[in-house]
Amino acid sequence: MAKPKKTPRPKAQAPRGFTDYFGKDVTERIEMLRAIAGVYHRYGFDALETSAVETVDALGKFLPDVDRPNEGVFAWQEEDGDWLALRYDMTAPLARLYAQYRDDLPSPYRRYTMGPVWRNEKSGPGRFRQFYQCDADTVGTATMAADAEICAMLADTLEAVGIKRGDYVIRLNNRKVLNGVMQVAGLLDPSEPEKFSQERGIVLRAIDKLDRLGPKGVRALLGLGRKDDSGDFTDGASLSETQVEIVMGFVSAKRDLVSETIEKLRTLVAGSAVGEKGVDELEEIAELLSGGGYDADRIVVDPSVVRGLGYYTGPVYEAELTFEILDDKGRSRNFGSVAGGGRYDDLVKRFTGQEVPATGISIGVDRLLAALRAKGHSNTEVTGPVVVTVMDRDRMGQYQEMVAELRNAGIRAEVYLGNPKNFGNQLKYADKRGSPIAIIEGDEERDRGVIQIKDLILGAKIAKTATHEEWKEMPSQYEVPRNEMVAKIREILGR
Amino acid sequence: MAKPKKTPRPKAQAPRGFTDYFGKDVTERIEMLRAIAGVYHRYGFDALETSAVETVDALGKFLPDVDRPNEGVFAWQEEDGDWLALRYDMTAPLARLYAQYRDDLPSPYRRYTMGPVWRNEKSGPGRFRQFYQCDADTVGTATMAADAEICAMLADTLEAVGIKRGDYVIRLNNRKVLNGVMQVAGLLDPSEPEKFSQERGIVLRAIDKLDRLGPKGVRALLGLGRKDDSGDFTDGASLSETQVEIVMGFVSAKRDLVSETIEKLRTLVAGSAVGEKGVDELEEIAELLSGGGYDADRIVVDPSVVRGLGYYTGPVYEAELTFEILDDKGRSRNFGSVAGGGRYDDLVKRFTGQEVPATGISIGVDRLLAALRAKGHSNTEVTGPVVVTVMDRDRMGQYQEMVAELRNAGIRAEVYLGNPKNFGNQLKYADKRGSPIAIIEGDEERDRGVIQIKDLILGAKIAKTATHEEWKEMPSQYEVPRNEMVAKIREILGR
Repeated sequence: MAKPKKTPRPKAQAPRGFTDYFGKDVTERIEMLRAIAGVYHRYGFDALETSAVETVDALGKFLPDVDRPNEGVFAWQEEDGDWLALRYDMTAPLARLYAQYRDDLPSPYRRYTMGPVWRNEKSGPGRFRQFYQCDADTVGTATMAADAEICAMLADTLEAVGIKRGDYVIRLNNRKVLNGVMQVAGLLDPSEPEKFSQERGIVLRAIDKLDRLGPKGVRALLGLGRKDDSGDFTDGASLSETQVEIVMGFVSAKRDLVSETIEKLRTLVAGSAVGEKGVDELEEIAELLSGGGYDADRIVVDPSVVRGLGYYTGPVYEAELTFEILDDKGRSRNFGSVAGGGRYDDLVKRFTGQEVPATGISIGVDRLLAALRAKGHSNTEVTGPVVVTVMDRDRMGQYQEMVAELRNAGIRAEVYLGNPKNFGNQLKYADKRGSPIAIIEGDEERDRGVIQIKDLILGAKIAKTATHEEWKEMPSQYEVPRNEMVAKIREILGR
Repeated sequence: MAKPKKTPRPKAQAPRGFTDYFGKDVTERIEMLRAIAGVYHRYGFDALETSAVETVDALGKFLPDVDRPNEGVFAWQEEDGDWLALRYDMTAPLARLYAQYRDDLPSPYRRYTMGPVWRNEKSGPGRFRQFYQCDADTVGTATMAADAEICAMLADTLEAVGIKRGDYVIRLNNRKVLNGVMQVAGLLDPSEPEKFSQERGIVLRAIDKLDRLGPKGVRALLGLGRKDDSGDFTDGASLSETQVEIVMGFVSAKRDLVSETIEKLRTLVAGSAVGEKGVDELEEIAELLSGGGYDADRIVVDPSVVRGLGYYTGPVYEAELTFEILDDKGRSRNFGSVAGGGRYDDLVKRFTGQEVPATGISIGVDRLLAALRAKGHSNTEVTGPVVVTVMDRDRMGQYQEMVAELRNAGIRAEVYLGNPKNFGNQLKYADKRGSPIAIIEGDEERDRGVIQIKDLILGAKIAKTATHEEWKEMPSQYEVPRNEMVAKIREILGR
């Protein structure tokens, strides 16, 4: 038995809901972010990086789950009494930043930012408590041209990272139209804006779940409530049947032509000033986009898109990938949303008291990466290093010279630094590293001025497919003069 | 007077000690990290990204300031009782990760990682509580070839980002040599390793402050203690005069030739097994590096380098920039350290109980960036966008088409999205954005199929230096046919 320990060993584990990313997963993300930043930059957006930590006050409470107002963020109290928290999105920090620096920033201020955000939520498969977002926002202008620009840029961005036209669609809606519908349904009284706000919140979140719950589930949430598969019950908005029909009529107002959808919406909000304004805004964005060649194959008006966050005040948009993938249970389903955003005209006002209109988009970086992998579109190839094996520990300096020569020629290379005694372990290591080539130089080779080159990729291929005869004819290991090492390896690597 | 408010407005301010990075500051860092990653990759190191959050247990307490053991990290307790914290460096998470995945990782495991770390410390000018580190480590091998490789890679990295040879030096030492000196001084008894550990900690941190305090300050800390300029008193190690002399003899053992320094150290630790082992290790690394052409112009053995962190067990290294800059008070001083690291053979053992030797380097990204800026070596040029002005709000669609044309040609461009009424504001905006060119198309131009191009860079130059006569001859605004817009702008931008 083990001796009693003074202090127990710490557990070697990332905290629950957090994960680690290795090798290609890291470099692929960096490359994708670089491609996205390239498009954002071309559109005139400037880079910004705020700190991961904000005061709880500055962040505010805008996460969708209003039932648990203190949940959702990782927060702690400092010795001086301040409450700090990790950012849960990039929009709240932008509002703080714009309010802080508004006199120095250009107006309008277009900025992009990329980095991790943190949510103190239940994690699940592929759903972690730290994940990347990549946002672009325009602050300080109310023009719909800003919203149209964001949508066009989002389309360009998806294509720039490798999503083909036809494999995505950007769905566009407007919160003002939804508010108009609420007004028609008697759920919003402009003279008493706070009245029914709880019901409207439930309606908003119910529509947001249409994809997942279907029309029947949404109807249940609009009515008395819904029991999910696990038996948990979610309270409904307790709307009357007529009210439910009005809301569902809005949700299903999408028609084949944008102009028809717009007309249908205009009928639905007739008599509501805010609703009509919303329809006008939708129409203006759609026209600007269509004028720029962004037509129904890329951008559609879809009233079922509302976005869960509470702070949107006008246009909302969502990028959906339309190709099918197999889910965990082997069922085919649409890949779904990879980006979303909208106009939030009141966020900066929290700080300054003055209206500062703003609109923007957030790309779910990890989901977009997953989509690219699902389509086999990942364009980053990580080649393992050439491994220089160690036959004689005392000649380490000379092996180091060999790798230096290779690196100076731009070839990824390393010397084996484990215990060199067992040569088989060195080859196993090279295999684990995905090495294309191993180099061998023992005393005998050294004396003759040659090295052995072991072509590991060819070797693996031969081992898999070749007959014994072919094997003999296609040697995967051969000798070359030491001074031809770099040239020969270049040739093998096909450069 | 203002009306009483229901809830006070949140303060628009980043938390104390945190800061925001704009535009060029962000892109320069990204480009520098990319250059560093390129070198690390070529050396065979694999990318890794662990999460920003770790359990407090896994992180351990390794920050230098042992006087305040609960300080230094941002930590909070979860509802389930777990204590979590933001990582304070990249080494502690690596030890956790290696212990967690050791069966799946290649051995040795070379990895690099880059990202922010957080320290709950007093901030100061240019010293923030969130900053970037970029680390490379080799885990799972005790060979000095791994340490030599890290030092060589560090030199290559500094040159890759733009630090010229001669402007930096990598200083190398070994904790075992220091321990040998402690043994000779009677401050370390191998049979009772815990005895005098507090004194040794004070000695270590005192030597680490040599740069800042000078030999006199270090002597004070080795003796009875030191009062700093603010009047604060730091306790000393209370060594005897003989002990102080032995330690100071070690600190000043550097000679012109590496071989002489090594010999001097060998004399100083004579009789201490651990000290002699340390000198052997130093000699081996120095020989490997010299064999690879990394000589005294890049790498020196310097016994005054000890590194403050408690976990180092063998070689330690530090990259120092040797050129001078002016400090806040206009005094010329060496730029100083931008990277450091060393061997830490016991960190993984905390988790597994088994010895896992490891060594690595951490680059202080923000300090290295500051150095490049100080030398004018920053190689990222951020050009402002071409600004298409808005003369007629109703023709927004056509202005959008113009910017789309420019962007498709790879030219950064945007349409003015503020209120277009005041044309002067549009030009002020272009100026604030650093725009090279503004484009103007009113009704009259539109009818004639032309646009006005305003060369803002030339304009600014003329305004600064030209006489009235020259001004007339060098028009900075001219007319070109609409369909020659892209070609003309390309020409102006010099592409």
